[in-house]
Amino acid sequence: MSTKALAIEEKICPLEKAVNAISGKWKIAIVWQINEGKKRPSEFLRGIKNVDRRVLNQQLSEMVKDGLLTKTSFNELPPRVEYQLTDLGNGLLKILWDLNEWGKSLDNSVG
Amino acid sequence: MSTKALAIEEKICPLEKAVNAISGKWKIAIVWQINEGKKRPSEFLRGIKNVDRRVLNQQLSEMVKDGLLTKTSFNELPPRVEYQLTDLGNGLLKILWDLNEWGKSLDNSVG
Repeated sequence: MSTKALAIEEKICPLEKAVNAISGKWKIAIVWQINEGKKRPSEFLRGIKNVDRRVLNQQLSEMVKDGLLTKTSFNELPPRVEYQLTDLGNGLLKILWDLNEWGKSLDNSVG
Repeated sequence: MSTKALAIEEKICPLEKAVNAISGKWKIAIVWQINEGKKRPSEFLRGIKNVDRRVLNQQLSEMVKDGLLTKTSFNELPPRVEYQLTDLGNGLLKILWDLNEWGKSLDNSVG
């Protein structure tokens, strides 16, 4: 492995992590839903097309683990769970808006 | 399909397109290489770790098709081919820098 290749690999690494973190289709949708004021898994299920509860819960857990979301469980009956964006999650949201705008240009250009 | 689901699907669509356009590992690397002044496929091959010529050419073709890159063929012997970012490609590059910075925070947070 050349020094040059290594340098480039290290440079791309944070970017790769970022892309991996947003590559899950529903992760982007979840961030979007929270931005729109939704908090509860049942709201995400209604708001996101073709997502099932198992996949949703898996994605939510990964996002909590990655530090994008915080999960709050309320000691009520029936149990209530809410998610919100962390500062890190809000940083992603800003970039997603930029990406969304850029995606519109891509759309026009591809035609 | 409810109106609500449809609205969200449409809203996410440009963002999904954007994510798809950058999800190919070498596409990000290619944009980065061009930003560093590289232009020719042989330079990309040397600069990107573990990429092969066939995959590289496939990615480059897709990026030209998507309007991210322009390809210029010089009528020389041996034939010379150069790629550069379009305005659309440069728009992506700016976002990739933001995503790269964000990826560093993710790294620290994940630990």
